[in-house]
Amino acid sequence: MAVRQIIIGAAVGAGLGGAATFFYLRQQQQRVAVAPAAGGFAAAASHPALKWGMPVGDRLRLFSDYVASFDTRLRNPRWVLEHINRERLAGRDGNRQNSEFVEDSGIERRFRSKLEDYKGSGYDRGHMAPAANHKASQQAMDDTFSLTNMSPQVGAGFNRDYWARFERFVQDLCKRCDDVYIITGPLFLPQRSGATQANGAPGFVMQHPMIGTPPQLMAVPTHYYKVVLGEFSGGRRAAVGAFVMPNQPIDPDTPLASFAVPISSLEEVAGLRFFPGYLSDARREAVDETALVVQSLGFAELRKLKPGAAPPLLPAPDGSLQPPLPVPTPGALSPGALPPTDQRRSLGAVHVCEHTECRLPAERFWEAGGGGKNGGRALRRTRSAPPA
Amino acid sequence: MAVRQIIIGAAVGAGLGGAATFFYLRQQQQRVAVAPAAGGFAAAASHPALKWGMPVGDRLRLFSDYVASFDTRLRNPRWVLEHINRERLAGRDGNRQNSEFVEDSGIERRFRSKLEDYKGSGYDRGHMAPAANHKASQQAMDDTFSLTNMSPQVGAGFNRDYWARFERFVQDLCKRCDDVYIITGPLFLPQRSGATQANGAPGFVMQHPMIGTPPQLMAVPTHYYKVVLGEFSGGRRAAVGAFVMPNQPIDPDTPLASFAVPISSLEEVAGLRFFPGYLSDARREAVDETALVVQSLGFAELRKLKPGAAPPLLPAPDGSLQPPLPVPTPGALSPGALPPTDQRRSLGAVHVCEHTECRLPAERFWEAGGGGKNGGRALRRTRSAPPA
Repeated sequence: MAVRQIIIGAAVGAGLGGAATFFYLRQQQQRVAVAPAAGGFAAAASHPALKWGMPVGDRLRLFSDYVASFDTRLRNPRWVLEHINRERLAGRDGNRQNSEFVEDSGIERRFRSKLEDYKGSGYDRGHMAPAANHKASQQAMDDTFSLTNMSPQVGAGFNRDYWARFERFVQDLCKRCDDVYIITGPLFLPQRSGATQANGAPGFVMQHPMIGTPPQLMAVPTHYYKVVLGEFSGGRRAAVGAFVMPNQPIDPDTPLASFAVPISSLEEVAGLRFFPGYLSDARREAVDETALVVQSLGFAELRKLKPGAAPPLLPAPDGSLQPPLPVPTPGALSPGALPPTDQRRSLGAVHVCEHTECRLPAERFWEAGGGGKNGGRALRRTRSAPPA
Repeated sequence: MAVRQIIIGAAVGAGLGGAATFFYLRQQQQRVAVAPAAGGFAAAASHPALKWGMPVGDRLRLFSDYVASFDTRLRNPRWVLEHINRERLAGRDGNRQNSEFVEDSGIERRFRSKLEDYKGSGYDRGHMAPAANHKASQQAMDDTFSLTNMSPQVGAGFNRDYWARFERFVQDLCKRCDDVYIITGPLFLPQRSGATQANGAPGFVMQHPMIGTPPQLMAVPTHYYKVVLGEFSGGRRAAVGAFVMPNQPIDPDTPLASFAVPISSLEEVAGLRFFPGYLSDARREAVDETALVVQSLGFAELRKLKPGAAPPLLPAPDGSLQPPLPVPTPGALSPGALPPTDQRRSLGAVHVCEHTECRLPAERFWEAGGGGKNGGRALRRTRSAPPA
């Protein structure tokens, strides 16, 4: 019995997900024998509807330095989860000049993303887990060039500029944190349709381009998100935050804080619950309370630069489209300016923008030469044409 | 060791999927100890990126007579898999008059579909596994009223008409098959954008309405699919087929065959592989070959009724947008008119439209009174207003 159970576990962990477990067992022509104690699994394995297996969809993929779930419908990663710290970042054995973009042979060709989908599309093959975070070994670096880690990003003004600065901001959290966990992924945000729903509520529409060749098209995300969790104080506390940016050129002067979003809102549009082992409802709510303040302050700063700027992207958790914007306190975004309440202190979770300055590195920081041989963003490897 | 492995199995089978397994283990504050033999699972459990768990997305849900995967992003089922046969259909203990539409309490409220999303939306709460297929017990009937089994369908002209006749066509396969397995789900098909991609290829866009309240919006599918697998000849052979219909009023005279699609094409736009335990590549290819003939014949029939009708919905597996349409043979859609080749005969799989007549039951067949107390489609229970 123990051996058979281990086999079941292995099938799940091998990167195929729960739906594939049954497939695996069927392929082995094994009758699943699970003790009554197994409950749910026994119920699934013996369910009369499952004689010929469950449909197989998204794939879980394990790489040396990151884990990804790949969305076989939109042919984009659903999420990419990586771990970095000072020690890993200090490594210099991986060189991106030796890495090539590769299709993920662990996914059937008709479901994976393909080199030809990107070719001449006008979009960059944008890393979700950045290559610059994984220089500790050549294998780790190579792994970040798997197309399972890529999504079609607008190059000029986004992937090669604002987003690159944002990636560096996240990497720099390691200066103030021991271990940093980062989830990155594409997002498909609906927009107001201009019409109303039948019941009079505002109407919404999902709309985004698809590239490649039908029926195996790949979606072009409207936005990208990152959720970060940086442990500090020996693991007793953590800085947490979520940011959402549009997949389009972003004015380099836009304050980072204006892209802060409540984790709840992001979770609800992404259909994902992030860091379930850490973010209890209470912790998420505490961090989200600060996120709304950060967002409001960032938006106020943005309005000073651009009086007509649109309000923040994601609605507040209560469903209102425009969160209540408190009167901003000038300079309130520096660390310590938002002292945690007693309750939040007891939970151990603070917002990223309370723990570090909510500012991006300078434009084209990589030209300053501080990054070592792989520190620069090797733009010459981005072969795609600039976006139309 | 055996007990711990069983716990792992149970967590997977309990309906949370692979991603949730780790979460479960973290919640138990257990360190996962898996023997090296467990391979993949051990790798996932010990991957340094997964300290705080994987993101939790789609949910696997087990009901008495069907299994469903729920898409927590689009708040629609991704697929619903049911099993029917003559014996189950003969049951009369379930009465839809005693069933109520209910939210699925097995999914957190912010990720599930809600009664209020449908209220006044103009869309029906459309069953994926039809209530009429699950009358053997009240529990089975009640289970089909879970919102996890629902998707927003256009009522008049579709859910209450053409789709209802299609559901009956599928049910009637039990007259010629022993056990019938049916996968039903929403589909989101891109359309030509009118523009071109940067490389000169035709442009495509995904576009569909969203209903409800942000950020917890629910998608309105552009289409619906069914994939059916009916065993016959004591299980030695099977009739297989896939159909895709638009979520809009359909002219009742439209030939069913014109909605036949190659399973490969459907799989590639849905991001799912169907019946993996039965449909080997060879079997799928054999059935798809016939599906293209069926589709072409159906389209030719349609063109006789409507000279300007648009070509079939889904492209051929080779990626061409309009499959090569062979010259139709009049009356070729009756059973036996498409004799299986020797190769296909040896594989045991034929197309549904080779095994039964590819014709829907009459319009408003339920008014003929042949369906017993639950045979009719109880339109009075559909409280939604007709679509705008």
